[in-house]
Amino acid sequence: MQSYFETHKQTLLDAVAASKSRDHWSAYPEVPSGKIYGETAKDDQKAAFDALLGKPFDLGQPTNGNRVGAEVSPYGLELGVTYEDASVDQLVEASKAAGEAWAKAGVEARVGLALELLHRLNRNSFLMANAVMHTSGQAFMMAFQAGGPHAQDRALEAVAYAYDAMAQIPKEVRWTKPQGKHDPIVLDKTFTIVPRGVALAIGCSTFPTWNTYPGLFASLVCGNPVIVKPHPAAILPLAITVQMGRKLLEEQGFDPNVLLLAVDTESQPKAMDLVNHRGVEIIDYTGSSTFGRWVRQNAMGKQVYTEEAGVNAITIESTSSLRAMTGNIAFSLSLYSGQMCTAPQNIFIPKGGVETDQGHLSFDEISTAIATALNKLLGDPERALAICGAIQNPLTIERVSDAQSLGQVVRPSSAIEGADDVRTATPALISVDAKDEEAYLTERFGPVAFLVACEDSADALQRAARSAKEHGAITGALYSTDEAFIDTAEAAYAKAGAPLSVNLLGGIYVNQSAAFSDYHVTGANPAGNASLTDSAYVANRFRVATVRRQV
Amino acid sequence: MQSYFETHKQTLLDAVAASKSRDHWSAYPEVPSGKIYGETAKDDQKAAFDALLGKPFDLGQPTNGNRVGAEVSPYGLELGVTYEDASVDQLVEASKAAGEAWAKAGVEARVGLALELLHRLNRNSFLMANAVMHTSGQAFMMAFQAGGPHAQDRALEAVAYAYDAMAQIPKEVRWTKPQGKHDPIVLDKTFTIVPRGVALAIGCSTFPTWNTYPGLFASLVCGNPVIVKPHPAAILPLAITVQMGRKLLEEQGFDPNVLLLAVDTESQPKAMDLVNHRGVEIIDYTGSSTFGRWVRQNAMGKQVYTEEAGVNAITIESTSSLRAMTGNIAFSLSLYSGQMCTAPQNIFIPKGGVETDQGHLSFDEISTAIATALNKLLGDPERALAICGAIQNPLTIERVSDAQSLGQVVRPSSAIEGADDVRTATPALISVDAKDEEAYLTERFGPVAFLVACEDSADALQRAARSAKEHGAITGALYSTDEAFIDTAEAAYAKAGAPLSVNLLGGIYVNQSAAFSDYHVTGANPAGNASLTDSAYVANRFRVATVRRQV
Repeated sequence: MQSYFETHKQTLLDAVAASKSRDHWSAYPEVPSGKIYGETAKDDQKAAFDALLGKPFDLGQPTNGNRVGAEVSPYGLELGVTYEDASVDQLVEASKAAGEAWAKAGVEARVGLALELLHRLNRNSFLMANAVMHTSGQAFMMAFQAGGPHAQDRALEAVAYAYDAMAQIPKEVRWTKPQGKHDPIVLDKTFTIVPRGVALAIGCSTFPTWNTYPGLFASLVCGNPVIVKPHPAAILPLAITVQMGRKLLEEQGFDPNVLLLAVDTESQPKAMDLVNHRGVEIIDYTGSSTFGRWVRQNAMGKQVYTEEAGVNAITIESTSSLRAMTGNIAFSLSLYSGQMCTAPQNIFIPKGGVETDQGHLSFDEISTAIATALNKLLGDPERALAICGAIQNPLTIERVSDAQSLGQVVRPSSAIEGADDVRTATPALISVDAKDEEAYLTERFGPVAFLVACEDSADALQRAARSAKEHGAITGALYSTDEAFIDTAEAAYAKAGAPLSVNLLGGIYVNQSAAFSDYHVTGANPAGNASLTDSAYVANRFRVATVRRQV
Repeated sequence: MQSYFETHKQTLLDAVAASKSRDHWSAYPEVPSGKIYGETAKDDQKAAFDALLGKPFDLGQPTNGNRVGAEVSPYGLELGVTYEDASVDQLVEASKAAGEAWAKAGVEARVGLALELLHRLNRNSFLMANAVMHTSGQAFMMAFQAGGPHAQDRALEAVAYAYDAMAQIPKEVRWTKPQGKHDPIVLDKTFTIVPRGVALAIGCSTFPTWNTYPGLFASLVCGNPVIVKPHPAAILPLAITVQMGRKLLEEQGFDPNVLLLAVDTESQPKAMDLVNHRGVEIIDYTGSSTFGRWVRQNAMGKQVYTEEAGVNAITIESTSSLRAMTGNIAFSLSLYSGQMCTAPQNIFIPKGGVETDQGHLSFDEISTAIATALNKLLGDPERALAICGAIQNPLTIERVSDAQSLGQVVRPSSAIEGADDVRTATPALISVDAKDEEAYLTERFGPVAFLVACEDSADALQRAARSAKEHGAITGALYSTDEAFIDTAEAAYAKAGAPLSVNLLGGIYVNQSAAFSDYHVTGANPAGNASLTDSAYVANRFRVATVRRQV
C-alpha cells in the first residue's frame, strides 16, 4: 500500500494552517491553463467526456441488474449515460460491510487516500468541467472552477478540519497520577477513533461537486463509508468522482464499496428511503428548504448537516462609486443566472433615494442604473452566455416568468440571443414596495431580483437583517459610506447569524465564497443547520473509544 | 472590570494542553486538606451550610412571588430551603434579554469570568461538599471530591475545549488574493462568534454539579445565557453555583440573568416546558434514558447533548490476582452504593469457571470470592458508610429488593449497621443465567450486580460488548491474562463504541472518569449522544458570522 499520506502531507499541513489563518490559500489552481494542467489536457479530457456519452457507465458496484439515468444537458445535449441501479437495502448493506475495515484503517491511511483522490480529481478537472457544465448548465469557465479546483479546495478544507480534529486525540498516553509518598497510579490508555457508521451525501443539481464534496470527504476520512446520492439531473460529475474513488480504494486494498453511488430518477426517488434507513447514521444534504425540513424532521437520532435556501439581500445606504457598485451588483445577479445559493435576490433601497459620487439619486434612478449595468454587462451575447450559462431546470424559466407579475418590471428577463439550443434567461429586475413581503420574502431561485422600496436606510437594513434571521441567508451585502451605519449593519447581521460583505466594488462578488477563509453558511439562520467548513462540521462524524490498562 | 482572563490565563493554557496530552492533570486539589483549602475552611463552610438551612435562599432573579423547594437529605435532615419560583416564560425572556450583551462580551471576558467562578467555587468546596452530601446522599469524602474539585475540573475541561475551539477562529484577517500581473484583490474580514441562544442545563439528583457543570460552562463561555434546571431533590448545590455566578456577573457589569435557576417540584415539573420552549436553543441533559429519549424526540431543531444510562459490564476471562480483582470489583460495586452512571451492573463469567493465580476456580467460587471481598470491604460499618454513602431516592431501595427475586441471591443487600437515620443499602449480588436477559439487560440503578453465567469466555465478551452497543454503556471492564483475548475485547468494545478498562487491580476503579484524560461517555452507544468533554461537545454551541470589506 502506497503511503499517500506522506506524498501529500505538506498540502495537508498547509491546508490546516490556512484554515486557521484564513488568508487566501488554494491547493488547486483555478486557472484552466495548459501550463498548469498540461497543454493537451483540455482536448484530451473533452474527448474522454465525449467517450462517456450514450454508454453505460460502470462502477462495478452491487446492482439489481437494472440501469437508470436520463440526464439532458441544459445546452441541449442528451447525455444518454446509464448507471447501475441498486436497492436501498443493497447499498446500505454493502456500505456497512465495507465500513468495517475502513473504520480500522487509521486516520493517516484514510486521509492519505482522500488527498490522493483529490489530486486525481484535480488532474481531471477538464473532464469534470464538461460533466458539470452539461448537467448544471454552468458556463464552461465556471464549471471548471466551481466544479473542479474550487470544489476540490472545499473538500480539502473539510479533510483538513477532520484531520486536525482527529490529530488532537493522541493514539496513546501513559497516565501517571501521583499518590504523595506512595507509588503513583499508572494507566496506559489508547484512544481509538470510532466512526459513526454509514454516511449519506445528497447532492444538488446546480453544484453537484462543490456542495457534495465537503460532507463526502469529511465523513470518509473520519472512517465512515459514504453513499453518494446525486440529484437525478446531475449524476455524472459524482459518478466520475465515485468511480475514481472506488478505483483508488481497490488499489489500496480496501473494499471499493466504501464509496457507493445511489442513482435514482425524478419519478422514483431514493432519498427518503435512504434518510429513513436504520443503517444510515450521517446525512449531508444540499437542496431546497422544503425537502431539507423533511430531512431534519425525519432523520431522528442521525447526525444531519444541511445547506438549504435563503433570501440573500443587498442593502444600499450610499456609495462612493455608483458605477462600480452597479457593475458589481449586475455581475452578482448574472453569474450562473442567479442559480447560486449565494446569489442576491433582494436589493433594499430607501424610497427617498441614496447619496452617491454622482449626487443624490432617487430610488428609480438607482433601479435604472442597475438595469443599465446589467444591459451593458450582457450586451454581447457570447459574453452573456459565458457569464449566465444555462438554466438547469425548465421550472426556473416558469418561475422567472411568474415573478415578473409580482411588481413593476424594471428590466425583463430574456433568452440570450443566438443561443437557441441552450435554455437561457438573463436576470429580471422587479420593483416592489417593502410591504409586498409575499413577493420578495420567498426564495425565487434563478435570475430574479427585487428592488425593494423602503422607508429609509434604517428600515432597509432592518428588513434585510430580519429576512436573514427569519427566512435564512447565505450571503448579505451592504453599500454605505457611513462608518456608523456600517457598524450598525455588522451588529445586525451578527445578531441575525448571517455574513455580510461591505462595499464590494472591485473584482470580488458577494456570491463568491472562498475555501479556507469564508465560513460558507453560518448554521445560525434558517438557510442551513451547519457551516461548511468548520470544526463543528467534522467533530460529530466520529467518536473516541478509550482503553485503559493498569500498568 | 477586572481582567480575570489574565489572572487565570496560565490555568487555562495548562488545561488546553492537558486536554490534548491526556496525561493526568488537575487544577483543583482533590485532597480536602486544611493546608490547601485553609485550616478553618472545613468548619467555616460547614457553618455556612448550616446557616442556609430552614431559610429562603435568595438569588434576586425574576420571580412570580411563590417559593418552592422541599429537599430532604438521605441522611435524614430536612433542609427546609426554599427558592424563588418563576414561570418558564419569565425565565426564558429574562435569559434572552441578558444574553444580548453577553453575546457581545467577547471570548476572553466570558472565559475569564468562568475561570474566576470556578476559582471561587473551588474555594467553597467544603460548602459544596455539604450541599452535595445532603442532597445526593454521597458520603462526605466523595461529595467533596466529585461535587467540588472533580466537578470543577470537568467544567474547566469544557471551558478549555470551548476556548480552544473559539481561539482557532481569528478575530480578523486581511485576505489577499494575487491576480497575476494585476493588483491583488484585498478584503478585510472580521469573524464574530455568534452564540446559539438560550441554553438549558438539566441536572440529576446523584451528581448535581459533576454532571451539570460541563454543559453549563461550555454554553456560558460560548456566549449563551444559561438556565439551570436542577433535579428537585438536589437543588442546593446548583443554587449555590448560580448565586456565585450571578454575583460575579453583576460585579463585572453584566446582567446577572445570564445565569438563572429554574426550580421545580416532583409534582409540578418544568423540564418539559423548558425543552419545548421556542426560545431555548441548546439543551444539556443528564438523567434517565426514558426522559432522555423524550428530550431527544421533542427538542426538534435544538442542539441536544445527553448523558443517559446504560448497563455497564465486567467480563472475567482470567486473572493474575484473584484477591486484587475481587477487591477492585467490590469497591466498584460499593462506591456510592452503585448510584453512578459508571458503576458496573453485570459481571459476565464463563460457567465453566476461570483461571486465576489460585488455580482454576468455578463460577460459584468466583461469585463467592466477590461476595467475600464485599463483606470484607464493608465489614466495618463506619467504613461502609464512608464508601457507600446514602441512597438518594427511596425508590432505589425498592428496586434493590425487587431485583433480588430475579435470580439466586449470592449476597443480599442490607442496611448499614448503626446508621439508622440514614437511607443505606449495600450491594446485592445476584446470580443469573445468560439467557435471563430480561433480568440483567435492564438498567437497575443502585447497589445491584448480576453475576451472569455464560457459555465460555468468548460468549461472555460477546454478551458484554453487545449489551454496550444495544443498551448502552458508559464504562466496561475486562480481566484477562491472555493478550489475544484482550486484543479481541478491545476491538469488540471499539466496535460497540464503548470504553474498556483492562485488569484494574490497584487503586483505580472502573467507575472513575478522569477529567482531561477519559472521554466520559462516548456518544457512540445508547448511553448518551455526546461525550463530556471533547471538541464535538463545544463546537456546536456557537457559530461564526463573517464581515468582508473590500480594501
